[in-house]
Amino acid sequence: MKAVRLVNYHQPLELQDAPEPKITGPLDVIVKIGAAGVCRTDLHVLEGQWAAKSNVRLPYTIGHENAGWVHAAGGAVTVLNVGDKVILHPLVTCGLCRACRSGDDVHCEASSFPGIDTDGGYAEYLKTGARSVIKLDETLEPVAVAALADAGLTAYHACTKAARALRPGNSVVMTGAGGLGHIGVQVMKAISAATVIVVNRNEGALRLAKGLGADHVVLALDGIGHESGSGDVVVDEVVRLTAGKGAEAVIDFVAEGGSTPRGVKSLRRTGNYYVVGYGENINVPTIDIISTEINFIGNLVGSYNDLAELMVLAAQEKVVLHTSVYKLDDFQKAIDDLSAGKVRARAILDP
Amino acid sequence: MKAVRLVNYHQPLELQDAPEPKITGPLDVIVKIGAAGVCRTDLHVLEGQWAAKSNVRLPYTIGHENAGWVHAAGGAVTVLNVGDKVILHPLVTCGLCRACRSGDDVHCEASSFPGIDTDGGYAEYLKTGARSVIKLDETLEPVAVAALADAGLTAYHACTKAARALRPGNSVVMTGAGGLGHIGVQVMKAISAATVIVVNRNEGALRLAKGLGADHVVLALDGIGHESGSGDVVVDEVVRLTAGKGAEAVIDFVAEGGSTPRGVKSLRRTGNYYVVGYGENINVPTIDIISTEINFIGNLVGSYNDLAELMVLAAQEKVVLHTSVYKLDDFQKAIDDLSAGKVRARAILDP
Amino acid sequence: MKAVRLVNYHQPLELQDAPEPKITGPLDVIVKIGAAGVCRTDLHVLEGQWAAKSNVRLPYTIGHENAGWVHAAGGAVTVLNVGDKVILHPLVTCGLCRACRSGDDVHCEASSFPGIDTDGGYAEYLKTGARSVIKLDETLEPVAVAALADAGLTAYHACTKAARALRPGNSVVMTGAGGLGHIGVQVMKAISAATVIVVNRNEGALRLAKGLGADHVVLALDGIGHESGSGDVVVDEVVRLTAGKGAEAVIDFVAEGGSTPRGVKSLRRTGNYYVVGYGENINVPTIDIISTEINFIGNLVGSYNDLAELMVLAAQEKVVLHTSVYKLDDFQKAIDDLSAGKVRARAILDP
Amino acid sequence: MKAVRLVNYHQPLELQDAPEPKITGPLDVIVKIGAAGVCRTDLHVLEGQWAAKSNVRLPYTIGHENAGWVHAAGGAVTVLNVGDKVILHPLVTCGLCRACRSGDDVHCEASSFPGIDTDGGYAEYLKTGARSVIKLDETLEPVAVAALADAGLTAYHACTKAARALRPGNSVVMTGAGGLGHIGVQVMKAISAATVIVVNRNEGALRLAKGLGADHVVLALDGIGHESGSGDVVVDEVVRLTAGKGAEAVIDFVAEGGSTPRGVKSLRRTGNYYVVGYGENINVPTIDIISTEINFIGNLVGSYNDLAELMVLAAQEKVVLHTSVYKLDDFQKAIDDLSAGKVRARAILDP
Repeated sequence: MKAVRLVNYHQPLELQDAPEPKITGPLDVIVKIGAAGVCRTDLHVLEGQWAAKSNVRLPYTIGHENAGWVHAAGGAVTVLNVGDKVILHPLVTCGLCRACRSGDDVHCEASSFPGIDTDGGYAEYLKTGARSVIKLDETLEPVAVAALADAGLTAYHACTKAARALRPGNSVVMTGAGGLGHIGVQVMKAISAATVIVVNRNEGALRLAKGLGADHVVLALDGIGHESGSGDVVVDEVVRLTAGKGAEAVIDFVAEGGSTPRGVKSLRRTGNYYVVGYGENINVPTIDIISTEINFIGNLVGSYNDLAELMVLAAQEKVVLHTSVYKLDDFQKAIDDLSAGKVRARAILDP
Repeated sequence: MKAVRLVNYHQPLELQDAPEPKITGPLDVIVKIGAAGVCRTDLHVLEGQWAAKSNVRLPYTIGHENAGWVHAAGGAVTVLNVGDKVILHPLVTCGLCRACRSGDDVHCEASSFPGIDTDGGYAEYLKTGARSVIKLDETLEPVAVAALADAGLTAYHACTKAARALRPGNSVVMTGAGGLGHIGVQVMKAISAATVIVVNRNEGALRLAKGLGADHVVLALDGIGHESGSGDVVVDEVVRLTAGKGAEAVIDFVAEGGSTPRGVKSLRRTGNYYVVGYGENINVPTIDIISTEINFIGNLVGSYNDLAELMVLAAQEKVVLHTSVYKLDDFQKAIDDLSAGKVRARAILDP
Repeated sequence: MKAVRLVNYHQPLELQDAPEPKITGPLDVIVKIGAAGVCRTDLHVLEGQWAAKSNVRLPYTIGHENAGWVHAAGGAVTVLNVGDKVILHPLVTCGLCRACRSGDDVHCEASSFPGIDTDGGYAEYLKTGARSVIKLDETLEPVAVAALADAGLTAYHACTKAARALRPGNSVVMTGAGGLGHIGVQVMKAISAATVIVVNRNEGALRLAKGLGADHVVLALDGIGHESGSGDVVVDEVVRLTAGKGAEAVIDFVAEGGSTPRGVKSLRRTGNYYVVGYGENINVPTIDIISTEINFIGNLVGSYNDLAELMVLAAQEKVVLHTSVYKLDDFQKAIDDLSAGKVRARAILDP
Repeated sequence: MKAVRLVNYHQPLELQDAPEPKITGPLDVIVKIGAAGVCRTDLHVLEGQWAAKSNVRLPYTIGHENAGWVHAAGGAVTVLNVGDKVILHPLVTCGLCRACRSGDDVHCEASSFPGIDTDGGYAEYLKTGARSVIKLDETLEPVAVAALADAGLTAYHACTKAARALRPGNSVVMTGAGGLGHIGVQVMKAISAATVIVVNRNEGALRLAKGLGADHVVLALDGIGHESGSGDVVVDEVVRLTAGKGAEAVIDFVAEGGSTPRGVKSLRRTGNYYVVGYGENINVPTIDIISTEINFIGNLVGSYNDLAELMVLAAQEKVVLHTSVYKLDDFQKAIDDLSAGKVRARAILDP
């Protein structure tokens, strides 16, 4: 089959002829790929940033946001049929450890991660496990939802945690309105009555966010201070929008370029700071944490059940993903466009 | 009346004759002080560390851990009688803001703090509000419980938050077994089945912790590394005691001298870090926070309801405070002993 | 002042000249009534159903859903000004008992209930307490929101409890789409992504519910069974709409005429049944409760904080109440219309 | 192998030579039985009460509380070794449905129940699934813990639900101090600081409960009323022990002989009633449910994770089960003794 493979770090991906995956275990599932999301993490993989962590043997096939159709299944798989239209949870999990048993399969003690530490979805076929497969509603197509499998799922997971503590009249600041953030806005509006304030450096992204339901948008400009106030125009604006108190929650999809100190200053007493993006450190004096009794909540990708719920929101058209679709053969252009910041919304490979 | 007053920062406290407080509002309560805790915060007050924050006008009476008997009450106070034996929540709260109305009176938007920003309890009488007064069980005396009003209450508040997420077989590391920590151990054993691991630099404190119910104690020595493992003997020991996984919770009563990086390394995936002590920064790469999905939870003093519950544990003899009692006239000796680290357990002034 | 008073049970109300209420306590507030809801409970009061429970001395002024403007306030009331536009929580609460202190003021141990056990709002002025007064957003008028003070608040309270356990793809059945139910539909759509199924005996009410956002409506007809299925067309339809599993939640605003056995049959395993209306018994074999592990959740009116949140939804136009307004002098017509089922939506008296 | 089989309902069990179970699926596990609890449910099975519900084909082997050693395992079972000492969760679950994936495996949509609808543990060997097997601590023996697999697990499950809402000073009434109740007392004392009040008809059971840590015991006598009070001596005593307010929780292990109306009367406002035993109906006017805002919580057996936690409490000696051990050949005597109420604590078959 055709597969886009990483042969060596710091060197272009290659479209190769690779062997098709085979069923070897009773819970294995082979999926014919209908769409594979192209993610910034893929760029980091190429740069070798994940080499030590994943320990993957080269060459291998990347791609960790996948949807398609069931092609074959192991003997113990009773809940799927060949031809079922499906989206894949990014991890292959064991179902036996305490984490899996409590619904927290993301922290499975024996998981693998196709596209990161084993062959992924930039290919015609992918092998995963029965525990990772979610049937799609008949109204949804793989190409429309594939990128929800990881980026969207991460946003959903953080938003549901935040929504649990948000009541009408409460405000949530979302830092970043890109791949994750624009899903986050839609999710938060769908599952809560919280007031959503989106902060971004890009006016186009803010227009998109407003169109998707954001109540307020704030342009993040560098180096522009105030003589009065907090010395930061974004913080000042958030404080103004929240009657002088700050927001009950900040969901930080960025965590770079000073977004964390700015986010902490935007928080009201007893507020919650959801860390989703990564880059800089959370670096806060303990006296500030205890005197305002704020919390910092880590967020990884969501669980299988989270993804199933997100697919409900997609089928109900409450969450819509805009995409730029490339043929599998044009993978290099997709990578280049993403790298150059030229991808509108989310790039998708369609084998 | 006699009162120990702060006349100027960086200068000894003075025992003065001060006017008795008077009822001026309908919910005012005057309490005859039976015991006032001497707290490390008092030393910080003398050093002027709170001057800018509290904006208190000098001279004033310090002392924020108070218990005694109701001496007089305003016309709208229907639930207290003169002579009632009571302990005082440290804050005077409004009862009308959203925080007070949701049980979170610590974040009252219009509170005062006797001993910090208004006259406190190193005196014969103190003025507080009806919302801050808890009647004591007949078996409890002011001198035995006064220090639970702030130090104990803070430990209780953090432990109840932690216990909510701890199941049998889970482990909680408590860093520090002093004023707060030795209460924390007793509280945690009373309200949960979690395994308690106490870390301290002092062997005597560890013996006390063990006697109070700690399941494991770990001596924190500086500068002793391991060739293998995490490079930190404390972390290695916690990891060993938790079957290689780390603890589900860390309650850090210290937050100084490197306790926070050590604590973070002691945490397992999805673990919770409770910040109680203050000093150094929480300084953690966001990649570490999201990849393990850990949380940092701020903790201030507990609410009125928390204090009422802690008094139940005290009456049930599940939480016992050891004290060194000084006469009010001997306040300087109490201060000096605390400052010199010579106080066994908790110093109490008895007017 | 003018006041509509209950002089004797089972006898028409009388419009009398009554003394204006006076400030007697430091936290008293006198409100000039701008609108008073006319509620089915008022009819029950006239019939004497509350006589033994309330023990109120006749004559007295009824009316427990009130909004207007602050007219006067006691000396300890610092957060309100004369002229403030306000809605009133139905209870006057103490702020000192454990219930009030934990945000559960509805279960205050020393409350009074204007309109039920003391003079209410069918009058020009009403006396309440500072803890019961919520300032209205400038866009809201007393006449538009008064009925949210009790009927709306009860619906909001039940819906927020239910929403906490409802995820996208889950279904909630609301039995009854009248005064409470039509608010419930709007609240549920505003705060959750749950699928709302409304059951009612009246086609007009169902059309209204659909217009307010209900996802599905089911006409409840008596005496029409199925040969197959559960023997109940409503249950069969709910089961069909929920992929054969039943609904995750039932909110029963009716609890009469067999709605409870029907509701229980509509519930899926581990589902929650919210009892809001009252009339018939919950009468279920314990074997059915334990084998499906279902729960029955009691619901009374909401708290002050609930009402404040509901006012946010009203100001955001997410919850809109339709009303029929009568002059105070026309109180008898309002009562008669309500009694005859001729009131469209909610009757309001405007003094 | 030897197996005690149900050949026909209403007829004695027979010790037969039955074929050993074989591994047929990749996740199958064969366990050599070390101990099988003899449960009242077994008597109900013999009486045919479960015939329609289980639809089991006769003859079959009963016994649903099992512990022993791993004898063989399917090819996909990687976490167990032959010889491992284990206890078995009573259900065999799929690991793929939404319930299993959220930790609620008891409501698995494709489970089987050895001893009820397939061959159970009154035998030398039993077949279960990898998802149902928990390794025992080295200090625990099958014969000492087998009855915790169902009776103990049910009590644990209800107690953990109740404990989540119980704070120091709160009271929980446990109705019944037999097989489930005597575990419940130990669990509640281990995981909470709640005050435990045990109600039973039998003075010996009350003595046992007191010895296991119950704070108060109340003898339930029939037909003895009071002239004053509630008309029920048990209710009066509970009300007295709870300062006139009633208990925050009732856990009803009985649900027969009037225990439910009595339990409801023992509850305070906003209290929770946990239904565990079954027999009579919950039959309560909705007006009583809503005016006091009480809840009824259904409880089935606990999850795998619950059982793992209960095994921790057993290994820590916080929960101890007293047993009467019979040889497998003496099964009839065990059944007869249980039926005659002659079993002290819990009967166990040891093959």
